[in-house]
Amino acid sequence: MKPSIPKGTRDFSPTEMVRRNYIFDTIKTVFQRYGYLPIETPAMENLETLMGKYGEEGDKLIFRIINSGDPFKDLSIDALVELIKKKNQLVSEIIRDEQLDETKKYSEDETLKIVNAKLSQEAKKITEKALRYDLTVPFARYVVQHQNEITFPFKRYQIQPVWRADRPQKGRYREFYQCDADVVGSDSLLNEVELIQMMDDVFTSLNIPVTIKINNRKVLAGIVEVIGEKEKIVDITVAIDKLDKIGIEGVNKELTEKQVSDKAIQQLQPLIAFKGNVSEKLIFLKKLISSSEIGKKGIEEAEYIFNSISQISNLKSQIELDITLARGLNYYTGAIFEVKANAGTLISSITGGGRYDNLTGVFGLPNVSGVGISFGVDRIFDVMNELNLYPETVASSTKVMFVNFGEAEEKYALPLLAKVRVAGINAEIYPDYAKIKKQFDYANKKQIPFVVVIGSEEMQSSQLTLKNMISGEQEKVGVEELIKKLK
Amino acid sequence: MKPSIPKGTRDFSPTEMVRRNYIFDTIKTVFQRYGYLPIETPAMENLETLMGKYGEEGDKLIFRIINSGDPFKDLSIDALVELIKKKNQLVSEIIRDEQLDETKKYSEDETLKIVNAKLSQEAKKITEKALRYDLTVPFARYVVQHQNEITFPFKRYQIQPVWRADRPQKGRYREFYQCDADVVGSDSLLNEVELIQMMDDVFTSLNIPVTIKINNRKVLAGIVEVIGEKEKIVDITVAIDKLDKIGIEGVNKELTEKQVSDKAIQQLQPLIAFKGNVSEKLIFLKKLISSSEIGKKGIEEAEYIFNSISQISNLKSQIELDITLARGLNYYTGAIFEVKANAGTLISSITGGGRYDNLTGVFGLPNVSGVGISFGVDRIFDVMNELNLYPETVASSTKVMFVNFGEAEEKYALPLLAKVRVAGINAEIYPDYAKIKKQFDYANKKQIPFVVVIGSEEMQSSQLTLKNMISGEQEKVGVEELIKKLK
Repeated sequence: MKPSIPKGTRDFSPTEMVRRNYIFDTIKTVFQRYGYLPIETPAMENLETLMGKYGEEGDKLIFRIINSGDPFKDLSIDALVELIKKKNQLVSEIIRDEQLDETKKYSEDETLKIVNAKLSQEAKKITEKALRYDLTVPFARYVVQHQNEITFPFKRYQIQPVWRADRPQKGRYREFYQCDADVVGSDSLLNEVELIQMMDDVFTSLNIPVTIKINNRKVLAGIVEVIGEKEKIVDITVAIDKLDKIGIEGVNKELTEKQVSDKAIQQLQPLIAFKGNVSEKLIFLKKLISSSEIGKKGIEEAEYIFNSISQISNLKSQIELDITLARGLNYYTGAIFEVKANAGTLISSITGGGRYDNLTGVFGLPNVSGVGISFGVDRIFDVMNELNLYPETVASSTKVMFVNFGEAEEKYALPLLAKVRVAGINAEIYPDYAKIKKQFDYANKKQIPFVVVIGSEEMQSSQLTLKNMISGEQEKVGVEELIKKLK
Repeated sequence: MKPSIPKGTRDFSPTEMVRRNYIFDTIKTVFQRYGYLPIETPAMENLETLMGKYGEEGDKLIFRIINSGDPFKDLSIDALVELIKKKNQLVSEIIRDEQLDETKKYSEDETLKIVNAKLSQEAKKITEKALRYDLTVPFARYVVQHQNEITFPFKRYQIQPVWRADRPQKGRYREFYQCDADVVGSDSLLNEVELIQMMDDVFTSLNIPVTIKINNRKVLAGIVEVIGEKEKIVDITVAIDKLDKIGIEGVNKELTEKQVSDKAIQQLQPLIAFKGNVSEKLIFLKKLISSSEIGKKGIEEAEYIFNSISQISNLKSQIELDITLARGLNYYTGAIFEVKANAGTLISSITGGGRYDNLTGVFGLPNVSGVGISFGVDRIFDVMNELNLYPETVASSTKVMFVNFGEAEEKYALPLLAKVRVAGINAEIYPDYAKIKKQFDYANKKQIPFVVVIGSEEMQSSQLTLKNMISGEQEKVGVEELIKKLK
């Protein structure tokens, strides 16, 4: 039996871990630099905390956990029989319902849906917990549950894996890390400004050239209002969000299919096509949508954000106002952010976020506004790998290896090794008395840059042989000199 | 609806996280100092990777994951019917078996066990994955799966949560972190010596006074051999391992119950009662068990380890040879380690480990010896909290907060704030224009040690007011001076 891991999951080797930790550490440093503090929530949440929060499609992708041990332990034969009886009975009830009332006619799908909904109570007998699907819903749950201990505004970051029963494919995993920073309990747009600075800081530190795209959900609301298609806001924004992928013809075709009026589609054209810098775009938008109250508010917000950013002169990223940007619209209520890499072959975004006005309402705590960003660490990892952006120091964590020739040499080496470690240098000794070639191979494969050789000559002279594994150079050094050279 | 989390799981607040990260970072630094490199494995493993590795009791505590979405989706009505038919059929077969063959007589429990075993194939229809139960089995799986990429000896560390469907109680959780370092592919006892150094380094850094107890499974094997109870090794070592808890009378009672001969029990008494330092114990043991080959080997190993340790003069912990120490005996084959805190009220061990000779055999790779240790981070966390051992710097990660009086002041503050951050200082500005009392409260609750006040006076003079939140002292500083003071 050749062991394997579940589809869509990954092992991370030391080489990959060192690189991933470099990315995580860079992001954490920036989060803390701006006053965000870490929290962690459990991998498993109660099923009712998660269900119904991600739409019908999302619910299906939640990994449920069997209460404990044998799945048939809690689900006894009696319970199974009961379950089938109930399922059959429910189906007959629906059929009878249809016969009695001619207006009622359920498709097979609908029947199954009704039956399954009624059976969800039964399902509790075997499953009451599930793996978290994202970090946002657990965070909302956390805020409500701990509201009396929290000092608001609450700036938290959270870096943990999430699980989705998606069909695995290239770049899409069933287990992956999310890396979120959110502030809740503050309406100030300064939070948006700082989050933009944080995204810029992270990608500048990682050396990835990026474009940060910004839009505002209120601007989108203003647009659909002035073109007279207020109730089609979801269809319209979903369609124009695809501009990059399907082009203007594709967008217009989709709008027509969604029964957006020809007049409205015509009015949208100059908006979608407009090219210009941020101030030109804002002037253009003002002319177009100032008759809408919400639209005006959106433009004011965007102006504040872009003005504040222009005052902070040290941003390295390209900042854009992109009125076609929508991002999971039913969720966000103010600013929306998205980051794309300017180099490499990855088209999808590597970071996103925005403001939401009612994160915690679903758990009984209304009127808590929040704004946050989420770094797509797996995609950032892919971009960094493709562009080979890691500094050289990220390669290995062991600085020096002591060769091990035998008992006497080992005995001589151990106190020296202890000294090197006390000095804060990562060091190891080859544990077995193996051939020197094998020991050098080990050091090379582990990318250890220096090796110390101790033989009888070195023991007599107290001068160790230090070999640079990259240049091949060798020199004789005392232990104090060795430490100085490796520090 | 008041939201909650599953029993036995925990949320970690920023205060707890900062403390826990201090523990994790200390351990990680030591791991790396000795040349151990990180890996990560997925939270979910294939069910067959985990089942049968933790004994019958362990198997029951494995959290299984439903393949995806609705648990009744894959388990169709037909499948359910089939399942019940099969279960009933199997039960009848067993009964028929019993009627045909009078020597066969199964208890109700046995019947259920046979049926469930045969049904495990059926269970696959709804569950093929499970949450990892520890880090050792996934590591063994990793080594076998990646054997061609790994350079042996392979020194890896792994810090990840594990899940157990145990009954939750004080100090026992259903989700908790394990923190393991293992080296595989090397028989050298130098690895044992270095692991002892690492345990000492970690607890010295954390400022926890500890006793590191050491024993050897081969010594235990030698003891049972010379007292003529070789086949009772498990019963005997399990009993004497409880000496601390149940006393010598309790141990003897348990030995009698397990049908260990009176003569053997008499022979054990001087061994259990023996007091003395390491050398005295070794001399005593030599006299007693040198007639056993395996016992002699065990004493040789212990001697090497204790001699090497005594050469390394800088160990701070108390090191003991404890011949009553057994720890999950069926697993370990050489040295065994256990660490207990010398202060505080916690009796149980906070770290443990040992050598095992055939970790990967079950996955088809025989003859790979390994030795490792596992830090019980949750228990270490409890001890550190009880003894209040955290350095002051572990309290908060934000160093300074800028007060926010309004639009003009904010505009003035932002570039200064950026300068402070570029200098590497964790800093934040209160995002809303709130009353000063509220802003100071926020800083106090977040344990931010310094606050910068910028009002009209400060803006005119370019001299900021810096307030020390602990002493209450205030002074005027320019931005460069501010940075110098906070660094």
